[in-house]
Amino acid sequence: MKEEVLRIIPLGGLGEVGRNMMVYQYGDEYLIVDAGLMFPDSTMPGVDYIIPDIQFLLDKVDRIAGIIITHGHEDHIGAIKHIVEEIPAPIYATPLTRGLLEVKLARSGVLNKAKLNTVQAGETIQAGPFQVEFFHICHSIPDGVGLGITTPAGLIVHSGDYKFDHTPVDNRPADFAKLAEFSQRGVLALLADSTNAERSGWTPSERVVDQALDQVFMLAKGRIILASFASLISRMQQVANAAAKFNRKLAFAGTSMVDNVKMARKLGYLDIPDNLIVNLDQVLGLPDEEVVIMCTGSQGEPSSILGRLSNGNYRQFDIQPGDTVVLSSHPIPGNEENVYNTINRLFERGAEVLYEAIMPVHVSGHASQEEMKLLINLVKPRFLIPIHGELRQLKQHAKIGQQMGIPAENILVVENGQSIVLTKNKIELGARVPTANIFVDGSGVGTVDYDIMREREMLAQDGFVLINLAVDKYSGGGLIQPPSIFSQGFILNGEASEIFDEVKNRVAEKAAYSNGKLQKDVEQLVRNYLYEKTRRSPRVFVQVIRV
Amino acid sequence: MKEEVLRIIPLGGLGEVGRNMMVYQYGDEYLIVDAGLMFPDSTMPGVDYIIPDIQFLLDKVDRIAGIIITHGHEDHIGAIKHIVEEIPAPIYATPLTRGLLEVKLARSGVLNKAKLNTVQAGETIQAGPFQVEFFHICHSIPDGVGLGITTPAGLIVHSGDYKFDHTPVDNRPADFAKLAEFSQRGVLALLADSTNAERSGWTPSERVVDQALDQVFMLAKGRIILASFASLISRMQQVANAAAKFNRKLAFAGTSMVDNVKMARKLGYLDIPDNLIVNLDQVLGLPDEEVVIMCTGSQGEPSSILGRLSNGNYRQFDIQPGDTVVLSSHPIPGNEENVYNTINRLFERGAEVLYEAIMPVHVSGHASQEEMKLLINLVKPRFLIPIHGELRQLKQHAKIGQQMGIPAENILVVENGQSIVLTKNKIELGARVPTANIFVDGSGVGTVDYDIMREREMLAQDGFVLINLAVDKYSGGGLIQPPSIFSQGFILNGEASEIFDEVKNRVAEKAAYSNGKLQKDVEQLVRNYLYEKTRRSPRVFVQVIRV
Repeated sequence: MKEEVLRIIPLGGLGEVGRNMMVYQYGDEYLIVDAGLMFPDSTMPGVDYIIPDIQFLLDKVDRIAGIIITHGHEDHIGAIKHIVEEIPAPIYATPLTRGLLEVKLARSGVLNKAKLNTVQAGETIQAGPFQVEFFHICHSIPDGVGLGITTPAGLIVHSGDYKFDHTPVDNRPADFAKLAEFSQRGVLALLADSTNAERSGWTPSERVVDQALDQVFMLAKGRIILASFASLISRMQQVANAAAKFNRKLAFAGTSMVDNVKMARKLGYLDIPDNLIVNLDQVLGLPDEEVVIMCTGSQGEPSSILGRLSNGNYRQFDIQPGDTVVLSSHPIPGNEENVYNTINRLFERGAEVLYEAIMPVHVSGHASQEEMKLLINLVKPRFLIPIHGELRQLKQHAKIGQQMGIPAENILVVENGQSIVLTKNKIELGARVPTANIFVDGSGVGTVDYDIMREREMLAQDGFVLINLAVDKYSGGGLIQPPSIFSQGFILNGEASEIFDEVKNRVAEKAAYSNGKLQKDVEQLVRNYLYEKTRRSPRVFVQVIRV
Repeated sequence: MKEEVLRIIPLGGLGEVGRNMMVYQYGDEYLIVDAGLMFPDSTMPGVDYIIPDIQFLLDKVDRIAGIIITHGHEDHIGAIKHIVEEIPAPIYATPLTRGLLEVKLARSGVLNKAKLNTVQAGETIQAGPFQVEFFHICHSIPDGVGLGITTPAGLIVHSGDYKFDHTPVDNRPADFAKLAEFSQRGVLALLADSTNAERSGWTPSERVVDQALDQVFMLAKGRIILASFASLISRMQQVANAAAKFNRKLAFAGTSMVDNVKMARKLGYLDIPDNLIVNLDQVLGLPDEEVVIMCTGSQGEPSSILGRLSNGNYRQFDIQPGDTVVLSSHPIPGNEENVYNTINRLFERGAEVLYEAIMPVHVSGHASQEEMKLLINLVKPRFLIPIHGELRQLKQHAKIGQQMGIPAENILVVENGQSIVLTKNKIELGARVPTANIFVDGSGVGTVDYDIMREREMLAQDGFVLINLAVDKYSGGGLIQPPSIFSQGFILNGEASEIFDEVKNRVAEKAAYSNGKLQKDVEQLVRNYLYEKTRRSPRVFVQVIRV
């Protein structure tokens, strides 16, 4: 009997494994799960965001049976406009997730290219050889799902981002019955969220935030300004509830937030009475103690509304003493500095600032260790594949699996691009597929190459020095006028003048005797001389103009 | 009766207030406390470190009565070589701190310029009008002190970096008796460490690390590589104790660590038997299970030993599967990304990696909220000045003071450069002194100006495009050959060729009709065109060569 083979390929460049995109392959048919973006780190100057590299799928686009989106956060839907440009497969999502996809696609003008299908948690679809059962899970956004994927090789459980919240804001706990049913059918492999694998215990319920908000609203004397993600729909509900309870009016600032609120109210995922919501102009006309403004910028992004408020350059209004600013979020790794600088600047402007470190105004949307154990015990998988995390987190998740009796050889930790080959009895490494960081920068006219990024990083280190040489095109040797020097980011002109004068002398001398390798020779000379004098290594470029 | 006035000025550029340097002024005499450096954040490319701006002291150097160093960490001693070049005042420090200063000054070749004086905790010195009593406190380095500074205006207590560790590694708890005595004498103002003001409870004792290390040593099957700061002397003692207990030999890697170990053993601050220490070559010849290597790099610095090990380019040895790597440290804010990337790379090389998030292999050296309260109750100051923290932490510390009954008007939170004027009955803001970030880069030949930093940051965003124009110096208008274009960090040459061809056409056309403002006109033209085509804004430089 032929052994059925399933191949699993996490995509997404460096960084968290399979968070942004997972690919399942059976025979020559494919299923994509999620199409998210990654935020750049400090080694990626000028990059707006990063999308998964789908190069190896491009010659197979007609064999992609479907694209499943598990929930509506940026790291799972943010690349959708790039994906629909290349892949014509039908997209399946729950109503709220679909709503968020529509808002995003419409803003990019590619809504017509997407074949969107609505699925409810509890329903099943067939996409090529993949039978996909959607089951409800809890996360920091409503309407998130995990997936039971039945393939000829066996049943796969894909957790998506999840936590086991017994008292979620929307009162819909995870579908434990379905998870137990899977285990009765026999689960070949569990692919599960590893984000909080370093965190012991159980992640607190989103309800904890209700209590913190009550306290904030009770104590605040002036306006309340609350920053969060534009897609954190359940936080909006919580803030609206608190506003109603404490007799304040609520306004949303920022297009993406306003669009999402409108969509979520229409679909019934936000239950906010009309008389509670006013627009930004209206709210600014009310007495301070009746004002709540919800906006974006909880990651300290300088161009966000909170970022601009902290810098005093938001057009609509200014922070004033007496304002209470709440950052209802957790800094994305690498963003800590930005977030703390924003907090410091808001304090400087006289606001009272409340944030996760001093008050539970945010809780994680991801399972901690005890929840991970519960999921494993509910599902009882033969194989465990930790996903959604950096290597350090996947390794901790693997350890948890081992502690629970899954043999080490049945657990596989891989990086993006490393495929996994799964049969009924075996898990092993498959071929690697190319997977790069695809950097998106500017209007999306193109992506930024890795080499360009390295050039930028090197320019940022010590700046550059450019030498222009004018040479007679007939005679060849010798300069027809003294070399000119131009530098940026190196040293100040005042400090530099003596050094640069000496560079000019040496270059002119070298040029007189250079035999054909003028550019290389001068580059070498200048590089060595500048390092010797300053211990710095600016990029040195030499241009020879023949006139 | 004339009211005696004391002025207090925290220095140190942006960032943590007074962490790196505090200045006390009475009449026209000055006392400096600490001379530390700050580490750069991601907006400061190419900077090695930042030192306090002492510009306003430069015309008063002969009226500086003394420089007191509270303990031997980089953020309190790291700028000493720059300070002794400018300020000839005597330096006072406890023996270990003096030892660390000597190592540092000797490596910079300026040891002879420093007038070093040894003081023991419990002793008193007179420096001009300042009577300074040194009292022992606990921190993550031995021999740290706080200061009681008696001035004609009153008694000031300056905590230094501290925690109240009842079971410190060196068995010397803080000098509670002295603190109580101060309160009996009456304390005008308390200046106290705010680092952990956001953290509730009590910071665990350094002893907690002993237990974690025992566990590490018990479970490790291969070599143990432990990374920490070169100045974390007490951690060295703890590792040596564990090595002795579990029959391993200990080697130190890295010049600064080796130098500090030598000095600390000589002074008796490290008690390590000779037969326990071997050099790096020797330890690498031993069986894996007998090896401990202590090195620098716990902040993920790419040039450190741990950084190089994680990248596979440390000359002496490579990480191998079976190695246990311990990061015995807490990421400095802004460094999280670096640290986690290093951890991921070490996992990739097959090491087992242990770090603060998953095991208490490090504890903070700073007081948490309950300790801050204890200090306030012990000292009973009239005025509270939170120092050693970012604004957000100082504000929390101020809140704690208020909760304990210090009136809000008796607490003053300031930023670096903002002086405080203190009399027996009043605390108020004084004049501002200039205080900038003095960036040190390269060999220390010069400092890096703020403008240079902005140039580098802008280059890193979208790179640059440089246009060379050759013009006949006699006729003036028109180009004598087509413009040449050179770019870095912008877009790839392949993508760019069409765009650049069009730029050349437009520039040539513009040049033909330009009347005198050729450079400006072309710059504007190119900038607009490139933005329109790519939505990116590279720096555009135009050079006109007249031949």
